[in-house]
Amino acid sequence: MALYEENDVYISNSISRKKELFTALNAPNLGLYVCGPTVYSDVHLGNCRTFISFDLVYRYLTHLGYKVRYVRNITDAGHLENDADEGEDKISQRARLEQLEPMEIVQKYTLGFHGVMSRFNAFPPTIEPTATGHIVEQIDMIQKIIDEGFAYEKNGSVYFDVKKYNESNDYGKLSGRKIEELISGTRELDAQSEKESPLDFAIWKKASPSHIMRWNSPWGIGFPGWHLECSVMSTKYLGDEFDIHGGGMDLKFPHHECEIAQNKASNGSEGPRYWMHGNMLTLNGQRMSKSTGNTLLPHELFTGETDKLEKGFAPTIARFFMLQAHYGSQLDFSSDALLAAEKGYHRLMAAYRKLASLEPSAESTSEFKVAEWHKASYAAMNDDFNSPILISQLFEATRTINSWENKAPLSASDFKLLKESMQAFIFDVLGLEDIGAQGSGQKLDDVINILLDLRKQARDDRDFSLSDAIRDKLADAGIEVKDGKDGSTYSISL
Amino acid sequence: MALYEENDVYISNSISRKKELFTALNAPNLGLYVCGPTVYSDVHLGNCRTFISFDLVYRYLTHLGYKVRYVRNITDAGHLENDADEGEDKISQRARLEQLEPMEIVQKYTLGFHGVMSRFNAFPPTIEPTATGHIVEQIDMIQKIIDEGFAYEKNGSVYFDVKKYNESNDYGKLSGRKIEELISGTRELDAQSEKESPLDFAIWKKASPSHIMRWNSPWGIGFPGWHLECSVMSTKYLGDEFDIHGGGMDLKFPHHECEIAQNKASNGSEGPRYWMHGNMLTLNGQRMSKSTGNTLLPHELFTGETDKLEKGFAPTIARFFMLQAHYGSQLDFSSDALLAAEKGYHRLMAAYRKLASLEPSAESTSEFKVAEWHKASYAAMNDDFNSPILISQLFEATRTINSWENKAPLSASDFKLLKESMQAFIFDVLGLEDIGAQGSGQKLDDVINILLDLRKQARDDRDFSLSDAIRDKLADAGIEVKDGKDGSTYSISL
Repeated sequence: MALYEENDVYISNSISRKKELFTALNAPNLGLYVCGPTVYSDVHLGNCRTFISFDLVYRYLTHLGYKVRYVRNITDAGHLENDADEGEDKISQRARLEQLEPMEIVQKYTLGFHGVMSRFNAFPPTIEPTATGHIVEQIDMIQKIIDEGFAYEKNGSVYFDVKKYNESNDYGKLSGRKIEELISGTRELDAQSEKESPLDFAIWKKASPSHIMRWNSPWGIGFPGWHLECSVMSTKYLGDEFDIHGGGMDLKFPHHECEIAQNKASNGSEGPRYWMHGNMLTLNGQRMSKSTGNTLLPHELFTGETDKLEKGFAPTIARFFMLQAHYGSQLDFSSDALLAAEKGYHRLMAAYRKLASLEPSAESTSEFKVAEWHKASYAAMNDDFNSPILISQLFEATRTINSWENKAPLSASDFKLLKESMQAFIFDVLGLEDIGAQGSGQKLDDVINILLDLRKQARDDRDFSLSDAIRDKLADAGIEVKDGKDGSTYSISL
Repeated sequence: MALYEENDVYISNSISRKKELFTALNAPNLGLYVCGPTVYSDVHLGNCRTFISFDLVYRYLTHLGYKVRYVRNITDAGHLENDADEGEDKISQRARLEQLEPMEIVQKYTLGFHGVMSRFNAFPPTIEPTATGHIVEQIDMIQKIIDEGFAYEKNGSVYFDVKKYNESNDYGKLSGRKIEELISGTRELDAQSEKESPLDFAIWKKASPSHIMRWNSPWGIGFPGWHLECSVMSTKYLGDEFDIHGGGMDLKFPHHECEIAQNKASNGSEGPRYWMHGNMLTLNGQRMSKSTGNTLLPHELFTGETDKLEKGFAPTIARFFMLQAHYGSQLDFSSDALLAAEKGYHRLMAAYRKLASLEPSAESTSEFKVAEWHKASYAAMNDDFNSPILISQLFEATRTINSWENKAPLSASDFKLLKESMQAFIFDVLGLEDIGAQGSGQKLDDVINILLDLRKQARDDRDFSLSDAIRDKLADAGIEVKDGKDGSTYSISL
């Protein structure tokens, strides 16, 4: 029996605002779509948190035995300034600033994004489609929406008719907004506007002569609207109706609301059955923002080259810290919080390593009941991927393991279950990495320095046979010691 | 003055069959297009060699101060079995075998390809366009070719009219083939064929009902011909006429020949001004081939998990080995050749490290004339990127450096020139990595064992204050020593 058949997973479904039992449309197959980055600048930590949250979801569902088709797109065209229908394409704008071709911008920041995700040990999606890679499909969907009567062409652009859609559907369903309030909250259209209503949004925009990223279409030369690509790519690879759609909370409106409308208007289905939204990351209690300077880039986090943190933190520490909060809760980054997470991480890893070196006993005599602990750990993850509760379970195990001496007071089968579950939760599900095994560069320096201290002592004691022996043995290991006026230095070769 | 203004680079231009002085169309900008992989299986070492060769070209041109726009495509659609106009798409075929969606195959093998290239320390291109990302542009080019009278539509497919093209152009110009011979060497068309002549090739193919990768077009639902994408993507990002086009020798005909015809037919220009072709890699004297089993995958090379090699080789050693042959020459992989390259590599790196630790003298008294050596090294690379000659120059420097004692018999300026040139050639141009600085895990073990030996000696001498001090200092460094019946062991934690 597959694990997913024994575990009822509940998901906080943004569209129903309820925690619902998850059922896959076509188990063991499972379709997961996550809105990826617009690759016009370095990915910021808030985005990283979103992608790490969905990496957790992907890892856990895969751990349960689902065969997950995980689609996360790259927005490489169509995303205009201020996420609005007007203005310059974000990528073209950056291309102008950096004096590069837009697709060079795309390549540069896609590589950067992949690099950061890999350092956070986040798995790549199984399909990573691009907006420019689906122009034909976007044109096809626009045509369908027009044919169904939910969009109109005006001067080479095509707009989605929100009012018309709302007559037979519920625009605002996901974000909980009412169309009347939305209209009253919108500025009047100015005389030049091509839109029939201020709520309408572009699904195809005519390219101005200076707009570089442009394609032929039945409506002339232009480019697709930003919201469209996700409707197209999610349904192309996962079907008109599919399991889960995720993204950052900031995308709920209008981006995801528009996706639902486009899906429904073009093929009659709203698309995903479960919507999941990751919450924000703040920094020292404030919203991260480039304009106020309260911001932190991944490389600043890793290196500590920032006045926002006392020191740098390994990516896996930052990942561990993020997973100590539920994906749906806001989380604040600060030096103190990261330092605490670092301590906790090392305690956990040390306990895991200790566990691996222990032997079981004839029978279980511990008050720690492995089977119950194991069940509660799964229950935590089944409850809307509650990683903080899972981590508290791991800390409970850590305390217990630390109290054991040479042997684990567990039967062989309990011991095996504990060891295998710890490994699965720490590495497979949470996706942590054991950096204890790394960092040997620093350790090597430390150990060489112990030897050099001993050698100095030997020289002070005029025990030259010992001091020479240390030097020779180090030389055999490829470490050359040089004696100078101010003490000994060494160089490491092969 | 930029380096490229001082260095006349000559390139063996496949289309003229002459070594020609290279002049950039629009210096310092330079356009380089290289045919990338079809991502339907693990990249094989022959491909790796081609991409490493063009990485050398890219690195050297960049080193000379050119601002290179380096476009290398990913073929993710349209490449049919046997590189012909009939049969199944290579990616769809693999998708069926692996029970994945074609774009999952694309993602899997693109990630694998990127991983291998990164291990070989090959730079990513500055733009990495995909065939599926340029369907609209391909449709546009097909329409232009039809409009110019060089293609015809038949039952939803579009074929390039080679005879018509050859009336006013020279089909066979690159590969040196004559159209009459080509025709006489081709099988008669069977009755069902849609082609007017056996030399004609598809630029758009109607999709059979089972063909998954399909797009709307003015000619119905289908997919682009394989040759077309490179014409489209090279000219889109580099202009109708551009500097250099590279690829493996096996692509010269028909792929590159067809590219020229498509370029000329659609926009009047043949495209690249310089064609460069990398030569083949053989294994133990035989052509690599999956069907005969005479084949080697990158991971087999790195790990040694193959009966074709005695042991594994670090990627940078394999890279060094490949660069010891000119890109235009055939090269044979064998254990002996790689072992020899490994020795040479370590000698070179040791000399470089020694050089870095030396001091210059008041004046140059060496017979080794740095300025001449420096000039000859550039001359090697200027002569059609002759890396084997450059490497022999580096070995000349290695022998000289090895003959020096504590000081380099060079003036400060000569010494600086030598050091900086060695660094630039080894790391920037050849793209080698110093793996001597790695492998500290083994070194750490070696050094800890020296300490444990000393500690054992101290215990044998009943010098317990020393033995305890060693144990405590190691503990401070996070290395726990455990004493047992059979001696001491240790475990490394953070």
